[in-house]
Amino acid sequence: MNDTPAPLRVAVLGCGAVGTEVVRRLLEHTTDFSARTGAHLELTGIAVRSLDAVRDPVVPRGLLTDDPAALIADADLVVEVMGGIEPARTLILDALRAGAGVITANKALLARHGPELYEAADAAHVDLFYEAAVAGAVPVVRGVRESLAGDRINRVLGIVNGTTNYILDEMTTNELDFAAALRQAQDLGYAESDPTADVEGLDAAAKAAILAALAFHSRIAFSDVSAEGITAITSEDIASAAQTGHVIKLLAVAEHRHEADGRGGVAVRVYPALVPVEHPLGNVRGPFNAVLVEAEAAGTLMFYGAGAGGVATSSAVLGDLVAAARNRVSGGKAPSESRYAELTPLGADQIHSRFQIRMAIADRPGVLAEVAAAVAEHGVSFETVRQQGLPGGPAELVIGTHEASESALAATLAALDTLDVVLRISSVLRVEGI
Amino acid sequence: MNDTPAPLRVAVLGCGAVGTEVVRRLLEHTTDFSARTGAHLELTGIAVRSLDAVRDPVVPRGLLTDDPAALIADADLVVEVMGGIEPARTLILDALRAGAGVITANKALLARHGPELYEAADAAHVDLFYEAAVAGAVPVVRGVRESLAGDRINRVLGIVNGTTNYILDEMTTNELDFAAALRQAQDLGYAESDPTADVEGLDAAAKAAILAALAFHSRIAFSDVSAEGITAITSEDIASAAQTGHVIKLLAVAEHRHEADGRGGVAVRVYPALVPVEHPLGNVRGPFNAVLVEAEAAGTLMFYGAGAGGVATSSAVLGDLVAAARNRVSGGKAPSESRYAELTPLGADQIHSRFQIRMAIADRPGVLAEVAAAVAEHGVSFETVRQQGLPGGPAELVIGTHEASESALAATLAALDTLDVVLRISSVLRVEGI
Repeated sequence: MNDTPAPLRVAVLGCGAVGTEVVRRLLEHTTDFSARTGAHLELTGIAVRSLDAVRDPVVPRGLLTDDPAALIADADLVVEVMGGIEPARTLILDALRAGAGVITANKALLARHGPELYEAADAAHVDLFYEAAVAGAVPVVRGVRESLAGDRINRVLGIVNGTTNYILDEMTTNELDFAAALRQAQDLGYAESDPTADVEGLDAAAKAAILAALAFHSRIAFSDVSAEGITAITSEDIASAAQTGHVIKLLAVAEHRHEADGRGGVAVRVYPALVPVEHPLGNVRGPFNAVLVEAEAAGTLMFYGAGAGGVATSSAVLGDLVAAARNRVSGGKAPSESRYAELTPLGADQIHSRFQIRMAIADRPGVLAEVAAAVAEHGVSFETVRQQGLPGGPAELVIGTHEASESALAATLAALDTLDVVLRISSVLRVEGI
Repeated sequence: MNDTPAPLRVAVLGCGAVGTEVVRRLLEHTTDFSARTGAHLELTGIAVRSLDAVRDPVVPRGLLTDDPAALIADADLVVEVMGGIEPARTLILDALRAGAGVITANKALLARHGPELYEAADAAHVDLFYEAAVAGAVPVVRGVRESLAGDRINRVLGIVNGTTNYILDEMTTNELDFAAALRQAQDLGYAESDPTADVEGLDAAAKAAILAALAFHSRIAFSDVSAEGITAITSEDIASAAQTGHVIKLLAVAEHRHEADGRGGVAVRVYPALVPVEHPLGNVRGPFNAVLVEAEAAGTLMFYGAGAGGVATSSAVLGDLVAAARNRVSGGKAPSESRYAELTPLGADQIHSRFQIRMAIADRPGVLAEVAAAVAEHGVSFETVRQQGLPGGPAELVIGTHEASESALAATLAALDTLDVVLRISSVLRVEGI
């Protein structure tokens, strides 16, 4: 409310791909930021591990420091784009406790220590913003946290990891196998040299936990998410999916199941799924992200865009920085943690999906009847069945099931495994869409 | 910051489709709203024109009033869903001046009197939120106003009128003519008995003005938007589009053209355009909306969902209500008007598009050369040419142009009109996408 508010001192922690772009845009568009926030945003320093590393010339060497604690102590707003749990966690907590608003892109930290960060932010009445932690430039965090705050969200479903989507897309479009597609993603900088967090679904699981906590107003941590990655997906799986007009996508799925007691619970999962090509998510190519939010009143909304990359992600960071700066000027605060609903994770017997089981079977009469009996015994029913001869070998049987619980599936698979006529279970995939 | 904040008194102005749903959800989910905002939201009254009209039983008769001024005087938060310019304008100004935060869905009012409303809100340091004014439940207002506030938006492009999208979709899918598709939209409640605002593009123009003002940090009013509707679209246009894999969509397009002087200007238009079926907007069916935002850092983002309907729109209204209530509790404020860029509308010679001109021509040698000469004379160049005989009549010539200015197009059309060999200009449509 002051006519000429004091400059806001901005500290940036980390100067990798995202940090460099944040610095570039902050310095290049400084008059825009002043006009949009009502205060001059003064970049006071950039904390890095090594002062001597080779950097983009846009990064002023004079602003580099290897003493993040000193930088934070003197900041109004802190942008954390260093990643990792420590020292990011301690630095963010120190910044919040010192009264600085924090903007972070750190999905791993938020999914593990979100409540602790929220508590520190609320105690100091300062902002904690994290749009860039989920789906890069795609504003789904604000969408769920603010735009849909007056609605009831039933399900959030999306492609939130660009690396795995790129790999699966290459396997589909260019018929590469997993290893070759991964190498290509690494060559292009879409995948890291240790790709574990991406290909095992852990990165997507952290994002799923963040979205689920916001959507369901409950504490959902990384450890509440069951994650299955894409390392077991074969070219055969991709080809088989294509036969029925499907593609395989790594989905993050957070859903609220309403139970008879009126409260229900949540299931938060990451898994590769069969998705029809004409499904909104079936069409998401390369490293792009898309998230569907299904809400009681709004119906189904889709958010789509670039899910990764330093430039795109900097847009989300800087949007949050403007919001935090506006709050500094006008006196507002980002939403606090909303956890009143206290929904808890469901057990495997309460989580339902449709499955596709692909198996090699002996090619002789009566096999289908045997398999069908084993499946039916566990309360699982067929939606589709497809059998075809494999060249010079046994037959392939592909079963699509109606909705079944995860525990019924596990029991069914165990039963199938004991049948002599089932030579091999080639793949088990969940099915999304019609 | 109080442990038990006072209840927030909420007044609703208008009780049509949106107002009824707002009331229903406010009353049904009252504990959710309390938990999410930190204060009890108390619905104090619903202003209506007629106390005796037949209403959904969810609307408590005891809360109805025909004295909106008295209701406002006593409110902390005012939800305006009555529509129209007056008395909505006066009531909103009175509410803001009295210190109430305002949530409105009134696109016509905002596009004409936005600056006046913003000034009143800023003077009183209260909120003005209007997510529901554009694209129903789709959170594109917050996306542009907040999420992308740290980026530079080059273009906003979207389908923001569900009525016309439904009509065009019916003309495409079920081969209805315009009149029949309009009647069907009216029967289903998608179009009003006087459909002018929708089919003439005026509703979309108001939304385009709102998005352009936010995207370009400039005052853009309804009168700055050039609007062309869909009343001239024929079944022939639709069929011709389908021949080249296109559909016709009514687009709202707001773009910032950078000029040599470094400032440039904006072009904000509504027009029916040829869109490839595989374009993200080509696939938007029925009454749905979708908006693409092209930004310097974020790249292209898409927002998609239900663009109309009382239930979906109530989600946007209530999201804003939660934001305004949270601000009441924590001391924040919605963003002020951002108009520092002071970009102004471009003239017709500065606005460029690709065009498709479809015409009936005499079927004899030399005609194409004559047409080509007339087009080239005005600096317009061909991208595609397609000629085909019409059954038992003249030939049809379809020209696709490279980018040309609106004024060059007008001159070209005038020149074509003077040619004897051009029997009729059947349609002129802009072309979007590749």
